[in-house]
Amino acid sequence: MSSLASLSLPVFPAAAIARLIAATGPSECIAGIARHLDTDFRRWPQFDKSPRAACHSPEGVIELMPVSDGVHYSFKYVNGHPKNQRHGLPTVLAFGVLAEVATGLPCLLAELTLLTALRTAAMSAFAAQHLARPDSRRLALIGNGAQSEFQALAFHRLLGIREFHLHDSDPAATAKLQRNLARLGLSSRAFASTAEAVRGCDIVTTITADKTNATILTPAMIEPGMHLNAVGGDCPGKTELDARILAACGQVFVEYAPQTRSEGELQQMPADFPAHEFWQVVNGSHPGRRTAEEVTIFDSVGFALEDFSALRWLQETAAGQGEILGLLPQLADPRDLFGYLPPSASLVRAA
Amino acid sequence: MSSLASLSLPVFPAAAIARLIAATGPSECIAGIARHLDTDFRRWPQFDKSPRAACHSPEGVIELMPVSDGVHYSFKYVNGHPKNQRHGLPTVLAFGVLAEVATGLPCLLAELTLLTALRTAAMSAFAAQHLARPDSRRLALIGNGAQSEFQALAFHRLLGIREFHLHDSDPAATAKLQRNLARLGLSSRAFASTAEAVRGCDIVTTITADKTNATILTPAMIEPGMHLNAVGGDCPGKTELDARILAACGQVFVEYAPQTRSEGELQQMPADFPAHEFWQVVNGSHPGRRTAEEVTIFDSVGFALEDFSALRWLQETAAGQGEILGLLPQLADPRDLFGYLPPSASLVRAA
Repeated sequence: MSSLASLSLPVFPAAAIARLIAATGPSECIAGIARHLDTDFRRWPQFDKSPRAACHSPEGVIELMPVSDGVHYSFKYVNGHPKNQRHGLPTVLAFGVLAEVATGLPCLLAELTLLTALRTAAMSAFAAQHLARPDSRRLALIGNGAQSEFQALAFHRLLGIREFHLHDSDPAATAKLQRNLARLGLSSRAFASTAEAVRGCDIVTTITADKTNATILTPAMIEPGMHLNAVGGDCPGKTELDARILAACGQVFVEYAPQTRSEGELQQMPADFPAHEFWQVVNGSHPGRRTAEEVTIFDSVGFALEDFSALRWLQETAAGQGEILGLLPQLADPRDLFGYLPPSASLVRAA
Repeated sequence: MSSLASLSLPVFPAAAIARLIAATGPSECIAGIARHLDTDFRRWPQFDKSPRAACHSPEGVIELMPVSDGVHYSFKYVNGHPKNQRHGLPTVLAFGVLAEVATGLPCLLAELTLLTALRTAAMSAFAAQHLARPDSRRLALIGNGAQSEFQALAFHRLLGIREFHLHDSDPAATAKLQRNLARLGLSSRAFASTAEAVRGCDIVTTITADKTNATILTPAMIEPGMHLNAVGGDCPGKTELDARILAACGQVFVEYAPQTRSEGELQQMPADFPAHEFWQVVNGSHPGRRTAEEVTIFDSVGFALEDFSALRWLQETAAGQGEILGLLPQLADPRDLFGYLPPSASLVRAA
């Protein structure tokens, strides 16, 4: 007789993560994830890495992003469907699992839509700490959609940025961002064009949504010493920078070159165009920015390791919390899976 | 103010799947999954296929197995950790997701430990319907572990097999299988050696657990006209057949050659050793078995498409059931992810 025992898997649905972020403070969460990113990027060579497994369709993409450090394993499921918005559906949703390598057992299952926004913002600001000029004060946010508040918070928290210049092709998006930033005590200015928003800024984050080869930034907008945080160009056919900016800039930094060359701004450049993996800057083997005048680019596409860092942060921060889901069977005798079935008339007459 | 609305994801934990199988009858479930396998293997070229993404460690392996037919997408998470048994933990656990390609939204999340046993058994018997001699009456089951009852049920249901010869290196496993089969009204005979169990059988299923290059079957055991259903050899370094059996047999059939050549019995053979993908037999483009005397081998490793078929069967069978999990956020305005955070003191002082 089976008791239908199951292994306890802590689950963090969207509402639970939202409450956790609100209670902790999003800025504090971003700082916590950034600490994990720092730890994990320093030991980058320890990770078993691969480009994400993408399933493309005319409407969008569904991706799986696995990574492991030999102790923990994580994967993220994430979609990208720009047309969903027309039907009132989210364009990007994500969830993921952290598991134990030694046993293969999952440790937790969590929504990753909110956590991806946090980790992307943490990654952007973490990279800028190493690549932007130390005297950076003013940030342009081009693209004021779902991730923009988190970007502003991360740069405020990790770099002390207090001046935010905003632009979006849809003024309603900018108005939404200004409202949310005001709620956080952060002041911002809206501009009617990207060129006006970017002028005089030390750092420019591009984080637009259209799946197209766009030229959100053109060479005329770029000023000496700028750091460009190019986040929105993150899959084949989706870019934000005029290729001439890449050709003329000082240095391009990426997360994981095999992935960025097909997904990032680099997809516009020859296969041998020079790019440096950012982890080398973190561990000191590459100097990063060399002069106050050179233009640096972080060609960010989002890498599985960042979700790993976010899930490890969650595991640490929310230990003992989470709804318990009996997803997996607990067998009294591992060889007797059949014995897990409860008694029933259909079972007896099955044969 | 956020209401923390979330998208409803039906979830099928292990206990729910166990109750569903018991209520429906495992034999009926296997027949239903076999119908989906038939439909899906007939339209094999429509699927977007790739070998599984495996993360190997000294203790075992964690795999992701994605596949899509352009309408639905599925992936399975599955581990294989032979040493888990020593610590009272299951050696194999699995769960998976079925999603909609047009929107990227998941349709359901389900345990796949039980469902994998059902679909593997359904696949074995489905292949044997095409490859074994039509007059097959007697099946040897070598390896009497977690999957063996389901194998027996599938061959009974789909091929009318009533004579089961059993052997396992651990007599307790065989005793467990005999008890469970008796409960199902199926009689069986236990043998002290593989050679004795196999003698006079029409079909031999090998489904042993050790992760090693074993020779469970040797050339002397093979009789003319046998069909060998080699299930246990399913990852690099894990095989069950003496390589001479492959070299001497009539024909070898596989699920997906790029995966089987590195994971199946074929890993012992040269890269150009002839093997036929089974879907070609199903759709009539390959004749399958040619004579009553030839030895056929189904070198089965388990392919993502089979989990897809099982999840589609579940979706059809259990429509409207499942626990509802609010894994993913439902946003009033897709661009206002930040607005999903509930009000809190930490939020306001965050900056």
